[in-house]
Amino acid sequence: MTPFRSIEWTGDALRLLDQRQLPHQTLYAEFTTASAVATAIHDMVVRGAPAIGVAAAFGLVLAAQQSQATSVEALRADLQTAANQLKQARPTAVNLTWALKRMLQQADAVLTPSADDLRRVLAQAAQALYQEDVEINRQIGLQAQSLIPDRATIIHHCNTGALATVDYGTALGAIRIAHEQGKRLQVYLDETRPRLQGASLSAYELKAYGVPHTVMVDSASGYLMQTQTVDLCIVGCDRVAANGDVANKIGTYNLAIAAKAHQVPFYVACPLSSIDMTLASGDQIEIEQRSAEEVTHIGDRAITPAATAVFNPAFDITPAAYISALITEKGVILPPFEPQLRQLGV
Amino acid sequence: MTPFRSIEWTGDALRLLDQRQLPHQTLYAEFTTASAVATAIHDMVVRGAPAIGVAAAFGLVLAAQQSQATSVEALRADLQTAANQLKQARPTAVNLTWALKRMLQQADAVLTPSADDLRRVLAQAAQALYQEDVEINRQIGLQAQSLIPDRATIIHHCNTGALATVDYGTALGAIRIAHEQGKRLQVYLDETRPRLQGASLSAYELKAYGVPHTVMVDSASGYLMQTQTVDLCIVGCDRVAANGDVANKIGTYNLAIAAKAHQVPFYVACPLSSIDMTLASGDQIEIEQRSAEEVTHIGDRAITPAATAVFNPAFDITPAAYISALITEKGVILPPFEPQLRQLGV
Repeated sequence: MTPFRSIEWTGDALRLLDQRQLPHQTLYAEFTTASAVATAIHDMVVRGAPAIGVAAAFGLVLAAQQSQATSVEALRADLQTAANQLKQARPTAVNLTWALKRMLQQADAVLTPSADDLRRVLAQAAQALYQEDVEINRQIGLQAQSLIPDRATIIHHCNTGALATVDYGTALGAIRIAHEQGKRLQVYLDETRPRLQGASLSAYELKAYGVPHTVMVDSASGYLMQTQTVDLCIVGCDRVAANGDVANKIGTYNLAIAAKAHQVPFYVACPLSSIDMTLASGDQIEIEQRSAEEVTHIGDRAITPAATAVFNPAFDITPAAYISALITEKGVILPPFEPQLRQLGV
Repeated sequence: MTPFRSIEWTGDALRLLDQRQLPHQTLYAEFTTASAVATAIHDMVVRGAPAIGVAAAFGLVLAAQQSQATSVEALRADLQTAANQLKQARPTAVNLTWALKRMLQQADAVLTPSADDLRRVLAQAAQALYQEDVEINRQIGLQAQSLIPDRATIIHHCNTGALATVDYGTALGAIRIAHEQGKRLQVYLDETRPRLQGASLSAYELKAYGVPHTVMVDSASGYLMQTQTVDLCIVGCDRVAANGDVANKIGTYNLAIAAKAHQVPFYVACPLSSIDMTLASGDQIEIEQRSAEEVTHIGDRAITPAATAVFNPAFDITPAAYISALITEKGVILPPFEPQLRQLGV
């Protein structure tokens, strides 16, 4: 049982574990409007592609509950406004768009609906997304086991665990399941600048699960692979193009380049909802640029001179050529990725 | 004129700019014993391979001044004790060993000396090292100009400027001289975790010189090279083996791997005093492991859960195959490095 929950639905509010306070404080905050949820997503109270998809779905439920609309048409218009706001909170992760689209499609599918029918269907659809996310993550974790040997030394980037999802997580979920199956692991966690999700969130999770782990600065991965046997790298993803190019947390690409130079397999744990077959390749993925303060300040402490210019892309693109396998809930996909993704009917 | 001095000698004390307080405060502190200088080197009040070599030389002068010895033999014994202590302050940079060895050799070369003769020779030798360092750095910077085009976009790692040396600096000195020659530059500074010398020290220097610069997290270099034209990477070094393998600040190797993947030239600014021909290759270079707190804390702020294990090598080894050229004060050396280094009589 996971000793914390990133996301809980109370019936009329979304309760989120404020990940900005971790690992020091386990604080929950409640959000009662769609625009408050959008702000929470933007400010990274909740983060991780699967988690923000589910959070946005409940944001839409809040919009439906609070809409004054009595007609279906008026309610649909209010939902569209809320969906647009939620979608803009983080532009890179496709799960956000995917979850909102799925919610609206399910509402559209109701025959001869009333406004209250729509409200009910949306609430059910969000609950279904929530439950499915847990199951998808467990499946990804199980599928990954063929790639994780006993006594494995693993490098992991960012946070992809129960905090980034509803439960279990993608890449970190695979590590957790390997541990639960009795595999002896040593996990090196990239600290993941600028927001330090590896040092704070992934270390918090692996400590809670009892998985042996060591934190390092992101740029130490090459030296680690040069001087010790590393069996695999495993990361999550925010969006995957049809050819298998992966958008994920900044630093993923540098890790992948280092892994290739050392012939270390590089795996991407990837729910099918992260795959965007409308994009031929990664260069079509919009990369979110975040504020300079994420780099220039740590907490309240400035680390640069005042007014220093900053380059702060939140994500990067790892070309498919660097990826040894995509691990989905329906199985492990080896290159070339595109024909198999099409066969899976993504 | 550089608006600050990393190292000044007052005649009976070593005055150091406390680099741990930068970029916020420009504070100087005086050190009056060899063991205080050793502690200052260990704690990184002063850092950068050339700077710590010169600081250690003055540490030895302090030991000579304060020794009660009246015989040459007794003074030599005291000096040896001080030299051993200074040498152990940072194990990786060869300049430290090199500077101390050169000091002691010059003291040994005095014919029919008295203890006071030795004291005088040591003071002169340290002053000579100090002056030479400025000249060597200027020469490295001038030699580098053939490799730095106008309108260059450059990635730089760590701090290799006037703060890391007596003045000018090695890699950052080359950038400064390019700017002084009127070349239009855009310099991307790796922030350089864990100690953030790029974000704090290199940004402080380039701001002082008026060189356009942008700070980024270390792991963004691959994405930068993938999405923009980068003309070159340039770094310093702490020790270079006979085959051209380079020990330098952790993250140098990851940057070099990313540069090679994007066919971006990777240059190492390298005073001849950093070359250690007694080591056949980089795997013989001892790599200093530093405290976990450097990674787990930023200022007083913990970023990991309590008692998290940390992998914190201060340096890494970049194999010669990743290095496009070594830039020394005697010229630019292209691969294969070893025969040319031997010809230079290093």
